[in-house]
Amino acid sequence: MFNRLKGFLIGKPLKSEEIHGQKFGVISGLPTLASDAISSVAYAGEEILWVLVPIIGLLSYKYMFYVSVAIIILLALLVFSYRQTIDSYPNGGGAYIVAKDNLGTIPGLAAGGALIIDYILTVAVSASAGTAAITSAISSLLPHKVTITIILILIMAVGNLRGISESAKIFSIPTYLFIFSVLFLIIYGIIKVKIFGYTPQNFQTTLKASGDITAMLMLRAFAGGCTALTGVEAVSNGIPNFAKPAQKNAKTVLFLLSALVAIIFGGMAYLITLYNAVPNLQKTVISQVAFQVFGNGFMFYLIQFATTLILIMAVNTSFSDMPLLLSVIAKDGYAPRQFTKRGDRLSYSNGIILLSASASLLTIIFQGETHYLLPLYAVGVFISFTLSQVGMVVRWVKIRESGWFHKACINGLGAVMTFITVIIIGYTKFIHGAWIVCLIIPITVAGMLKIKKHYNETANQLSMENVDFPKCDAEKARHFIVPIAGLNKSVIKTINYARCLSNDIVAFHVSFDEGETEKLKEKWEAYKIDVPLVIRESPYRNIEEPLMEYIHSVEHPSDKDDVVTVVMPQFVVKKWWGNILHNQTALFLKNVLLQDDKVTIITVPYGI
Amino acid sequence: MFNRLKGFLIGKPLKSEEIHGQKFGVISGLPTLASDAISSVAYAGEEILWVLVPIIGLLSYKYMFYVSVAIIILLALLVFSYRQTIDSYPNGGGAYIVAKDNLGTIPGLAAGGALIIDYILTVAVSASAGTAAITSAISSLLPHKVTITIILILIMAVGNLRGISESAKIFSIPTYLFIFSVLFLIIYGIIKVKIFGYTPQNFQTTLKASGDITAMLMLRAFAGGCTALTGVEAVSNGIPNFAKPAQKNAKTVLFLLSALVAIIFGGMAYLITLYNAVPNLQKTVISQVAFQVFGNGFMFYLIQFATTLILIMAVNTSFSDMPLLLSVIAKDGYAPRQFTKRGDRLSYSNGIILLSASASLLTIIFQGETHYLLPLYAVGVFISFTLSQVGMVVRWVKIRESGWFHKACINGLGAVMTFITVIIIGYTKFIHGAWIVCLIIPITVAGMLKIKKHYNETANQLSMENVDFPKCDAEKARHFIVPIAGLNKSVIKTINYARCLSNDIVAFHVSFDEGETEKLKEKWEAYKIDVPLVIRESPYRNIEEPLMEYIHSVEHPSDKDDVVTVVMPQFVVKKWWGNILHNQTALFLKNVLLQDDKVTIITVPYGI
Repeated sequence: MFNRLKGFLIGKPLKSEEIHGQKFGVISGLPTLASDAISSVAYAGEEILWVLVPIIGLLSYKYMFYVSVAIIILLALLVFSYRQTIDSYPNGGGAYIVAKDNLGTIPGLAAGGALIIDYILTVAVSASAGTAAITSAISSLLPHKVTITIILILIMAVGNLRGISESAKIFSIPTYLFIFSVLFLIIYGIIKVKIFGYTPQNFQTTLKASGDITAMLMLRAFAGGCTALTGVEAVSNGIPNFAKPAQKNAKTVLFLLSALVAIIFGGMAYLITLYNAVPNLQKTVISQVAFQVFGNGFMFYLIQFATTLILIMAVNTSFSDMPLLLSVIAKDGYAPRQFTKRGDRLSYSNGIILLSASASLLTIIFQGETHYLLPLYAVGVFISFTLSQVGMVVRWVKIRESGWFHKACINGLGAVMTFITVIIIGYTKFIHGAWIVCLIIPITVAGMLKIKKHYNETANQLSMENVDFPKCDAEKARHFIVPIAGLNKSVIKTINYARCLSNDIVAFHVSFDEGETEKLKEKWEAYKIDVPLVIRESPYRNIEEPLMEYIHSVEHPSDKDDVVTVVMPQFVVKKWWGNILHNQTALFLKNVLLQDDKVTIITVPYGI
Repeated sequence: MFNRLKGFLIGKPLKSEEIHGQKFGVISGLPTLASDAISSVAYAGEEILWVLVPIIGLLSYKYMFYVSVAIIILLALLVFSYRQTIDSYPNGGGAYIVAKDNLGTIPGLAAGGALIIDYILTVAVSASAGTAAITSAISSLLPHKVTITIILILIMAVGNLRGISESAKIFSIPTYLFIFSVLFLIIYGIIKVKIFGYTPQNFQTTLKASGDITAMLMLRAFAGGCTALTGVEAVSNGIPNFAKPAQKNAKTVLFLLSALVAIIFGGMAYLITLYNAVPNLQKTVISQVAFQVFGNGFMFYLIQFATTLILIMAVNTSFSDMPLLLSVIAKDGYAPRQFTKRGDRLSYSNGIILLSASASLLTIIFQGETHYLLPLYAVGVFISFTLSQVGMVVRWVKIRESGWFHKACINGLGAVMTFITVIIIGYTKFIHGAWIVCLIIPITVAGMLKIKKHYNETANQLSMENVDFPKCDAEKARHFIVPIAGLNKSVIKTINYARCLSNDIVAFHVSFDEGETEKLKEKWEAYKIDVPLVIRESPYRNIEEPLMEYIHSVEHPSDKDDVVTVVMPQFVVKKWWGNILHNQTALFLKNVLLQDDKVTIITVPYGI
């Protein structure tokens, strides 16, 4: 049943060797990796205006342009920086690897942890924003927005469990739809004003200003706009996902992606200036501009529809990158090993499940409200940007290959600029929620270090050093105990099996009821079972205490190789509901017995 | 941790022999068993008025009195009937046992199933009504009513897990408080009007009538009032819970209980007639009368408080009776055997847990709204009344002891009257929810029969008939397979243990990665491990398929005694969070292997 449902949802298992067929080219990689970065354009320009308009009124449009230029310059810097990273780390140059390689474990884990947190936030924020777009259109769905958001997340999870390439195919259409329709909006919008001389309705010619232009104001606007740059790191993290030549393809995608972000973000900023849209809570700035450019027609709704879709698709970037990052961290021993395993369809299923579960939880906690989640967002990304750039600088200084100084300068500039951005974002958003992230990152790092310590201890304890191979001493494993509740065929099967392996067997019965015990003794004699029957009382109606007591009475505490073997029958019920009809005493008993290193357990199945 | 919390909540384990100290006398039995029956007075009178007042106006008070007299006569009949049941069934004469004994299995299960469903409903209804009383007083708690109801249910569950006698002690105070304060209300209320000549404010002298007095109307009023009789059956079900002389104590409690119900129900009906209270959604009829009698003072609030408490205490009747009934049914094999087990404090813990879980679920589904649950209520009780009375009639006809005809007439009259009540309740409440109960009872019966069938089949399969004791043939258990993922100390411990038991051992490795496999081979040789290493490929990255294939290749399919033994290391992690850091592959593999009857599993623990 479960297997068939699973097969239906995520498809037939793929062979390990089919893995190369599952990789990105440029055309399929761009939409999958770009949706996060490009979708942020849907709110980044608006975020800048929200800061500026209430303070400096009409001057906002002028200064918005300056701020946008600054952000695009920062983007260009990031592109140059990350091209160098892609060149240096052909196997994937995520912030985690670069920082760990060059700065050490803790900065690496900080970068990795920050990114993982941000991926989870991306899923929650983008899915909530996508739902908000749906519920704005169909207001009757508003009470169900948390449910809708979680359904969206689950659809994305299933898509990604099916495998990378297939998701790329599904997800490329909406990304391209958004890119082309927004580009068309920008070009047509500019032509309409500049060539046809159109004057937008409600064109703002006066807006009250309540304050002065200050450096702090510009910094806050800049911090708001920087959300446009989240998602750029996706490409360098994802190099192993690219088809060969992976580095070349990755650089092409990075270039295309950044160019698109720059054109769309810059173009939208310019368009907003031309149309003087004022942000409000009812309509997004993009929708206001689109309404002015296209009127209440097909193209207007297409833009709205494409915006909704790209926000949902942004979720997909996290689903393709976060499990990959987690698998890298897990391979290094800083996260549970399960995250390194590929599922039936070669995707990192456990990472995908973790991501969808945590994002769903965040959605429930924050009731699917985007504005509660946004202040937590972007801090993590820029922390990882900074650590990664600093790591690259240290790398160039260390290896001193030709042109190292030039390269170090590029990464250094990137590091300084992204660090300034971290300070700006952290400072301006701290009380609104950035503090949560600042708290969770160190906790995550501490947890990762603890996991690594556990794995190291385990590895040491299991290591083959000083291992001895004592010749087998059958005497050491001689004590066989068969705990029984009564006498039936499954007990006989168990005892017969035990007799094949040992001559020193006792059957062990815990008595709850004298009458029952008497009956058992009589039966035991009647069937002439040639195994001694040991009976113990249990006033508190439990089996484990008298059994453990008996085990300790027969084992040799001083002899470290001495072993007591407990042989237990286990019912194997064919009907799925059958298990609840049988006491799970055996299962419980096994868990208790296993706590003792010297007790080995033999399970003899009996099908019923 | 878990054990300490458990110890704190439910107390230290009790010895099995302490069971006799845990039983009811009359003084402790009455409040525990009576709260359900007596608490229904809190709404039964009102239910009658709700039917009558909108149709026949002021005449309602006259006819309410007639209906109440009819219900009290039915109660008296039930008392005589049940006294005979208690005499005939000293070990507990619940409807289940009486019906099963005399009418056969299916009527017995129908009665038992109906009662179990009604017990669950009692818990949900009474806890919700108790919460409603709290939230009426403190309206700020209203949004949390589901949470409060569930907390109340859990408190009752913990109290009952602690043990029967202790719960009786805790719960007797509120029951007696309700009894005495309501008796005082009735007596003082009658004196105030009849002797002091008080005329209540808002005394109704005219009430619009919209229809005629019809037989159907009287039946509906009767059906509503019959909720007053739910809970009477508790005594005869609970005979084994009484201290010796159990039958005498039980009959005394039954008599006292019924007398109290008759006096309080009848007295309240008379009082309502004197004060002409009109039911409304804001104030209960009892609270209206109490306000008139005592004014806005201490006694008024005491009545309100006692009403709240008795409703909560009614929950307790179900908690003491339902697990007992379920244990009886389970002992007969019609319910999972776990329900026959007594917990640490000698209460039937699993039944208590099932009851609190299902009632909490009902509370969540019906959002703690009493009026959605009420129509489902009472049908089950009267079905079980009827089946039990019919059973008694059949019994008297069969055994024909002296006076049998007289006794059969009493039970026969009871049967006819309760059957008529079933028809009335079922007919008048069918579309409002009684249909759900009419649907669930047959489903429950079918499930119980299926469980019995499974237990019978299992018992047949396990029975010692035709069992043979083949002399042990060590050759039959010769194949030992040790599946390994790599080479470490726990693998060595496992192999060493296996060598003590068999000479025919292979280590079995499934290769996911050629490099890793090569390394393993080299290590295997380097350490000179004298056990052959079998390696298989697994294109789909799973272990179970190649392993099962290998097992089938070594076992002798024709030889039914042939056994393959799989020896597996298992990590036993000391830290509670450690388990999530290790692949649970071994656990999963065991479950797959156990499906094969011929595979025995040895688990060798390794503490890390």
